[in-house]
Amino acid sequence: MARPQLPPLLYADTATSTDQLYFSRVSVHDPFIAFGVGRKRITVQSALEFGRVKKARTFDAVLPLEDWRAKAAKRFPRSKPGPAEIIATLARAYRIAGFRVADDFPVALFLKLRKLGVRLETANGALFPEREFKTPAEAAAIREGNRLSSIGFTVCEQVLRASRIRGRNLIYQGQPLTSERLRHAIDSAIMAAGGRADDTIVAGGDQACDPHERGSGPLRPNELIIADIFPRVVATGYFGDMTRTYLKGRASEAQRRLCTTVRAAHQAALDAIRADIDGRAVHQLVVDTFTAAGYETKHGKNGSVGFFHGTGHGLGLAVHEMPRLSGLVSMKLKAGAVVTVEPGLYYPGLGGCRVEDVVQVTAQGAKLLSCHSYDWEIR
Amino acid sequence: MARPQLPPLLYADTATSTDQLYFSRVSVHDPFIAFGVGRKRITVQSALEFGRVKKARTFDAVLPLEDWRAKAAKRFPRSKPGPAEIIATLARAYRIAGFRVADDFPVALFLKLRKLGVRLETANGALFPEREFKTPAEAAAIREGNRLSSIGFTVCEQVLRASRIRGRNLIYQGQPLTSERLRHAIDSAIMAAGGRADDTIVAGGDQACDPHERGSGPLRPNELIIADIFPRVVATGYFGDMTRTYLKGRASEAQRRLCTTVRAAHQAALDAIRADIDGRAVHQLVVDTFTAAGYETKHGKNGSVGFFHGTGHGLGLAVHEMPRLSGLVSMKLKAGAVVTVEPGLYYPGLGGCRVEDVVQVTAQGAKLLSCHSYDWEIR
Repeated sequence: MARPQLPPLLYADTATSTDQLYFSRVSVHDPFIAFGVGRKRITVQSALEFGRVKKARTFDAVLPLEDWRAKAAKRFPRSKPGPAEIIATLARAYRIAGFRVADDFPVALFLKLRKLGVRLETANGALFPEREFKTPAEAAAIREGNRLSSIGFTVCEQVLRASRIRGRNLIYQGQPLTSERLRHAIDSAIMAAGGRADDTIVAGGDQACDPHERGSGPLRPNELIIADIFPRVVATGYFGDMTRTYLKGRASEAQRRLCTTVRAAHQAALDAIRADIDGRAVHQLVVDTFTAAGYETKHGKNGSVGFFHGTGHGLGLAVHEMPRLSGLVSMKLKAGAVVTVEPGLYYPGLGGCRVEDVVQVTAQGAKLLSCHSYDWEIR
Repeated sequence: MARPQLPPLLYADTATSTDQLYFSRVSVHDPFIAFGVGRKRITVQSALEFGRVKKARTFDAVLPLEDWRAKAAKRFPRSKPGPAEIIATLARAYRIAGFRVADDFPVALFLKLRKLGVRLETANGALFPEREFKTPAEAAAIREGNRLSSIGFTVCEQVLRASRIRGRNLIYQGQPLTSERLRHAIDSAIMAAGGRADDTIVAGGDQACDPHERGSGPLRPNELIIADIFPRVVATGYFGDMTRTYLKGRASEAQRRLCTTVRAAHQAALDAIRADIDGRAVHQLVVDTFTAAGYETKHGKNGSVGFFHGTGHGLGLAVHEMPRLSGLVSMKLKAGAVVTVEPGLYYPGLGGCRVEDVVQVTAQGAKLLSCHSYDWEIR
């Protein structure tokens, strides 16, 4: 029989810790204490946050920080009571034998708690492994994130279609079209629809060969333009994450073959995904598709060319979470997991191409949680 | 003589760790290794990020993760090499005696590194204490953040001015004006100006009595409306943070007295701030101003009324950083620090009022890094 798990203890804010957001379901921008006792979830909040967190009704109990600081001061009269002293006081009051903390729990607080005699175990993996498996409500929230991404692509296509080619420039509403202007058009539309797109990638030409380069300056005709849009739904905190690659003007044969190959690898991965397949096997399928088509991957002193990132990653309250579809780790995809599928090829001189969708893993196969046309040539 | 400090070691992404952003000065959205050797700063990056980070030229050396993972695999043949094994391998290669890590360094990695024989010390305070003192370039970046806040207030005033009172509603462009619509108008204008405003507060009436309530639903005439705007400048990562309180319609005498008192406390704090004053003394001045004017602070079972948050906090790459102006801690304000000054009073039934500006501490006094009118009654 498995040893009963210790209850979780968190000390973080919800803006930087998705575990805290998952556990708390209410936004608090400064680090705060939250923990479990049996099936109950308890938090300690300062006067500043107390009323708001209580009204959110996401915790079974909201304790006033000021009261517990006073109790901790009595129990530890020699030190100014901070989070460690307060947590130790709570642990005794609630008769908690020990806590399980996330691997990224703050080390200084961990060491202090141990010194105060609080038993702690690190999760050695996910603090909430159940986060990997998305409930229908979570899947719907991710679908909504992808709907926002799709709104972004629609804006992107409208702007490219309305742009005119003048020499090496694209002219939109009388001014050269830049990555910045196109990104702003995309992000504004997403904001109006209830999302926040914080680092939308709109990168053309060789810039797109750095897969995480956001893009800057004029966009050029007849060059591949990667748009990678991963907005957060403000109401729920869940993300969408989709990528399309465009070209305004006329594609060369080499560009066309690049895009066709990426899309083929993308489809091969989508077709292969089902419960219990290894993420590494899906990744290998993509690698094989590229190799078979003659696209080599090389690592040089100043960077890499070809396909040099993972095929996908889990998506939820974080843009990158468990599981991974990568050549580096063997990791079985389990039913309920939600992952991106995003093969890409990058060759300076020719440009970059990436196509990304989001699926939920089921026993029968991959269920798409994203939907947008793959048309990419815009005349 | 002080013991020579160990060089810093970081393992975090720049989206959630402002220390990592401060040290790296380039955005990377997955956790990565960065450390100091002498005066040099070194990072390890995967193929996915390598080229982009190298081009940013913010590090003295960018090492390829794949190579160092291979070296770590040789040195630790029994375990799958992760960040701990790679860091241990780097420490030996660079002959580093040990590292200083932030108090919020991830505990699991800390414990693993110690097991591998890497000497580690926690900072016990700030990892980079110099972050508290803003260079002229940093002060300018914060000023730019506040310029974005001011753009937000201008939009807010325009919308309220253009709104018409119809019974208990404000009608703007034919529809009832809500917190959501006003927030969207503010955030869009900030985005167009190069900022991201992620949790702008636009809260009216009793909602504003929870100081961190973002606000929702219809805004009412003759009620106080708190607008707290803290946008991030996309280009630099620095924040602005300002608050103004408005009222559309006619203020009651009680509302007017509340706003006058908050503004008086705000001015008293601004006048008092100079190098070497205790942040707690500044806070006490605000408390005294409120008490003298007859405004009581009370803590009840469902929340607090009166003045129940700190007077201010440091501002920079994080919205909340060192130092604090609070009744809870004695903390001398040092020349170069940048802090908010934001007294407020909150009474359900009457409403809430908060006024917030940002100053840099100098020997001569507080130098304003924010500027916007205090006019608040909009007819």
